[in-house]
Amino acid sequence: MNSDKRTEIASLGEFGLIDRLTEPFTPQNSSTVKGPGDDAAVIDTGAESYTLLSTDMLLEGVDFDLVYFPLKHLGYKAVVVGCSNIYAMNGRPTGITVSIGVSAKFSVENLEELYAGIRAACADYGIDLLGGDTRASVTGLVISVSTVGVVGKDKVVYRNGAKLHDLICITRDLGAAYLGLKLLEREKIALNGVQNAQPRFEGYEYLLRRQLKPEARRDVVEELAAQGIVPTSMIDLSDGLASELLHICRASKCGARIYLERMPIAREVHTLAEEMHLDPVTAALNGGDDHELLFTVPLAMQDKLMQFGYGVEVIGHITEESTGAALVTPDGATIALKAQGFHGN
Amino acid sequence: MNSDKRTEIASLGEFGLIDRLTEPFTPQNSSTVKGPGDDAAVIDTGAESYTLLSTDMLLEGVDFDLVYFPLKHLGYKAVVVGCSNIYAMNGRPTGITVSIGVSAKFSVENLEELYAGIRAACADYGIDLLGGDTRASVTGLVISVSTVGVVGKDKVVYRNGAKLHDLICITRDLGAAYLGLKLLEREKIALNGVQNAQPRFEGYEYLLRRQLKPEARRDVVEELAAQGIVPTSMIDLSDGLASELLHICRASKCGARIYLERMPIAREVHTLAEEMHLDPVTAALNGGDDHELLFTVPLAMQDKLMQFGYGVEVIGHITEESTGAALVTPDGATIALKAQGFHGN
Repeated sequence: MNSDKRTEIASLGEFGLIDRLTEPFTPQNSSTVKGPGDDAAVIDTGAESYTLLSTDMLLEGVDFDLVYFPLKHLGYKAVVVGCSNIYAMNGRPTGITVSIGVSAKFSVENLEELYAGIRAACADYGIDLLGGDTRASVTGLVISVSTVGVVGKDKVVYRNGAKLHDLICITRDLGAAYLGLKLLEREKIALNGVQNAQPRFEGYEYLLRRQLKPEARRDVVEELAAQGIVPTSMIDLSDGLASELLHICRASKCGARIYLERMPIAREVHTLAEEMHLDPVTAALNGGDDHELLFTVPLAMQDKLMQFGYGVEVIGHITEESTGAALVTPDGATIALKAQGFHGN
Repeated sequence: MNSDKRTEIASLGEFGLIDRLTEPFTPQNSSTVKGPGDDAAVIDTGAESYTLLSTDMLLEGVDFDLVYFPLKHLGYKAVVVGCSNIYAMNGRPTGITVSIGVSAKFSVENLEELYAGIRAACADYGIDLLGGDTRASVTGLVISVSTVGVVGKDKVVYRNGAKLHDLICITRDLGAAYLGLKLLEREKIALNGVQNAQPRFEGYEYLLRRQLKPEARRDVVEELAAQGIVPTSMIDLSDGLASELLHICRASKCGARIYLERMPIAREVHTLAEEMHLDPVTAALNGGDDHELLFTVPLAMQDKLMQFGYGVEVIGHITEESTGAALVTPDGATIALKAQGFHGN
């Protein structure tokens, strides 16, 4: 090991770390259309469509807590996370590989529950299990998912195509999955050691559902196609709006203004945030796990967006790079958006 | 969780577990030519060639010990493991995704060493880094690799094509990687707590190299193509000869006879096995990590195999399914081959 110098991972942040590790790589194969740096890699196999490939890892104790995350839901969510990356390229997922590292505390029946969730999600999203690896783990459960998809060569959407004055759109309300997580954590602490514990979830079913049974936005990608809209840029919201919008700004070399009063925040997010002394706007900006799509379209597409059968919210617009990315409050103040550091969500 | 019944994972064995988990899945997409159950999935993208996809997971404390496994070598090995799966389909790897779960004990410089190894292997095998995920881990290092490749539709080789009387071939000597691991473990124990420790590796450099810097057999796949040989079945030897030959027998519905005196076992394996009171034949049959190829060819191909510029050893032949898979000793005794259980190597 190099013992001369020690730079803490946390000091670089997640963007900086991945950049630093992947920067020295240069593609050698003409089939590699897009390598690291987007929601999925883009591969030209010589077919009419591009092949997409994304990969995600979920770690026990970081990405999920089995005290409150049922294994079946976890299996479902692992597939949703993968599919969401493919939709974020404007593609269609077709298959998934699932590798698990599993310790002896898990029984075969536990794993069958996990796979029942994987199977349910495969059925819902029309994708096939393509393979996987099963390893003994000395610690907890590790799930690694690689997702394959297809996208028309004229339909693929990257992070780097946003243009000045484009509209910034999101596909549903923000922060609910994060508040769902906070609620589950609160009840876990409150009920630790209590016999026949009954957690208090009444009124917050929506938040729990957003955390425990997220959906990937297949419907949005299908509706975009039906309306003949190819977004100029797109990304999925797994790491929170602020981080993801900054990804688009960085890749597209642009700035952004989003407006606080346009941010869709569910009533339950406001209620629970107040109860738990949390800021609902911070939850909306930085709370992860929403798996909604963030995309940009030319201003002229606004009328077509209004035809969507469900809410697509226009929350702002793309600006000059020099202006940075910021949230504008109702009184006109601008607050610069900040990316989250290296973290587990 | 299902608390009614608890079947221990170990009771099923690795084959049984994966079968039980993947059996309920049925492919929904015509692009899925082959799902779980081979070295890689086979996808028909509509191009002239098939696309291959395999996935592997390496876990600290199970698959590697960082006390003696340098991070650069680990990165190299992770890529080799992935490429070996693609070669085992008679394909050519083109790209890889690498996801890592990493705890705060690792510095940025540590990860740069890991990625230097990944980069060196990508250069050696002519493949591109396509993407990845970086997660915080609360425990050790987890590496998940998915490997993409291509193979001609008339060249793809599965596990299930072995035919009666086919020759069983392997591409190099067996058991050396396993003995290399045993040597490293011995020195770790011997030197625990010793100041300025000097491990005793003299004479065993070959074993160390086979464990710490394995190579995937690109050369064999290229030579097979040059000789116009398409094996009837093929698999890579990551889990040891006995397990892998049983995979072929099970998939091809056949039996096998391999001959003890034909088994290539390096001199160093014999020497260290004697020194450590281990059985070199057990190491050759069950020791993992060799990443050689095991394949079958029709009897008529024997002359062509002899043209290979390096050793391909014919160790036996395919028999009727009813005869099972067995090792034949020089005195004519047959010893039934057994698969290893669920394990970490």
